[in-house]
Amino acid sequence: MIGEFELIERYLRPLAAGSPGAFALTDDAALLTPPPGRDIVITADAMVAGVHFLPDDPPDLVARKLLRVNLSDLAAMGATPIGYLITASWPQDIGQDGGEDWLASFTAGLAADQAEFEVGLLGGDTTRTPGPMVLSLTALGSVPGGRCLRRSTARDGDLVFVSGSIGDGALGLEVLRGGLTGLSPEHGASLVDRYRLPRPRLALGQCLLAEGLASAALDISDGLVADLGHIAGSSGLAATLEAPAVPLSPAAQAVLAAEPERLQQVITGGDDYELLFTAAPADSGALAALSDELGLPLTRIGVMSTGQGVRVRDATGAEMSLEHAGWTHF
Amino acid sequence: MIGEFELIERYLRPLAAGSPGAFALTDDAALLTPPPGRDIVITADAMVAGVHFLPDDPPDLVARKLLRVNLSDLAAMGATPIGYLITASWPQDIGQDGGEDWLASFTAGLAADQAEFEVGLLGGDTTRTPGPMVLSLTALGSVPGGRCLRRSTARDGDLVFVSGSIGDGALGLEVLRGGLTGLSPEHGASLVDRYRLPRPRLALGQCLLAEGLASAALDISDGLVADLGHIAGSSGLAATLEAPAVPLSPAAQAVLAAEPERLQQVITGGDDYELLFTAAPADSGALAALSDELGLPLTRIGVMSTGQGVRVRDATGAEMSLEHAGWTHF
Repeated sequence: MIGEFELIERYLRPLAAGSPGAFALTDDAALLTPPPGRDIVITADAMVAGVHFLPDDPPDLVARKLLRVNLSDLAAMGATPIGYLITASWPQDIGQDGGEDWLASFTAGLAADQAEFEVGLLGGDTTRTPGPMVLSLTALGSVPGGRCLRRSTARDGDLVFVSGSIGDGALGLEVLRGGLTGLSPEHGASLVDRYRLPRPRLALGQCLLAEGLASAALDISDGLVADLGHIAGSSGLAATLEAPAVPLSPAAQAVLAAEPERLQQVITGGDDYELLFTAAPADSGALAALSDELGLPLTRIGVMSTGQGVRVRDATGAEMSLEHAGWTHF
Repeated sequence: MIGEFELIERYLRPLAAGSPGAFALTDDAALLTPPPGRDIVITADAMVAGVHFLPDDPPDLVARKLLRVNLSDLAAMGATPIGYLITASWPQDIGQDGGEDWLASFTAGLAADQAEFEVGLLGGDTTRTPGPMVLSLTALGSVPGGRCLRRSTARDGDLVFVSGSIGDGALGLEVLRGGLTGLSPEHGASLVDRYRLPRPRLALGQCLLAEGLASAALDISDGLVADLGHIAGSSGLAATLEAPAVPLSPAAQAVLAAEPERLQQVITGGDDYELLFTAAPADSGALAALSDELGLPLTRIGVMSTGQGVRVRDATGAEMSLEHAGWTHF
């Protein structure tokens, strides 16, 4: 079995090569100098095998999802990523003699996303566990001094926007579970890809913050309805969601054409990692221009008002009743 | 069973009350403004039930050890703590109806140490796991711009010093395992206390950095011999350790008086969380004054020289052979 120091040396140290403050992972902690005039934004998320990912998911995609769900939190604050720390509790069979493929694939996934998102490994810890693999990642970014996007700052009359398309992650998980049949292979693969590989909307978050276009924002992980509820609740407002306006990918459209009742799953399923944000009606034009600039759909899906709670309206304007509001992590 | 949001609301949110940038744990990430002229130091360590702590250890002490092993890493860099994030993967029985005692005790432990070390909760994540509990903590501190203590900067001829006493943690674990008998109850309790409740030497680290007294430093977690090997190896030097000079608590002295062969366990057992550092011989007087000022023993235990590896000498000056160099986390 590979030892801890050998594992760090062979698989993790190369990931820290681009981060001078990581000291090649040889010291007790990393040193981080924030860019001049900027503050630090920091977030941490954990993933448990069998709970947040499937034990036979490709290791490189597990690694990239772990990094990306944290980068998505940075995106929701309008931050520019800097680096990350990882604590990994590996089961005994990871890194056994002749069986280091898992580690090699996992760290190759991290390396690929480090290049894509310009981040570096700063530190962490590796341990053994007799139970399922548990991976925890802490991501750091920076924002202009003292400023970031928040959830609690939506205003009465603001419009609700969402980036990209909704429901692909939840439907992708359903494909992997064998619960979605009759789908074309291309659509199935596209949904699975969106489940396994979130797209953190970093450029969007940074632009929304820099241009002052969003009054409140978060990234959708619990489900569109539940997360809209988080903005509404923390802002002391109510929200109305127009279900027919929710943007859908071609694959999700195909699913709903065959099984319209899956709309609930789409808007409550979670794992979207799109940005949900509120904006003044007067900024609609600027948001359309930003959407063009980024090549990313920004769709108006609702409105904030006085009151509390989230109402979801169907195509007739009638209020939909939902079986459950969204994913909780328990 | 208590839900995730209720658990955060009831047990974790109060821990973030003193950290404005934590936004009461309602946002996707925390905002951190480094003190003027200072940089960020960051470290992360994980603990697995049954591996790094005993499942029936008191929950408040598990929490405090988790925080303190990370604060000890900050101490080794000379940093002043700011705050921390925690990701906790709880087994199903934690927080069940009528059984929230574990959570209440765990968070009470964090609250006690937040007050003692002037740190606050900044964020994190809670998940469920079907396996043993896994706890990961990321600690942040600050150091004067660009400066921190390192492992790799020891110089030929430097003396080796250690704070406090060595071996209490390893012997305390042995007491809990029932492997140490014939010890007085007071000595047994004192060793167990040192195993369960490390003393991060933050004031010492900060003074060593501010006064330029240490040429290299780390905190002893793997074991005195192994960690001295880390300083020697990363500095490109050899180290000689004088075993009779290693400072021992009254309880450890009592153990060694009865079982002299346990000296190996004392110097290789780990879990000490004392600072091991190197210093120029000319700074011995300043270190004696610092020891008086802090009320903390600083004991000279060896010397750095050209070459490689760690030699341990016994009372006769003969080289001791060690069965194993120290604890690895696997």
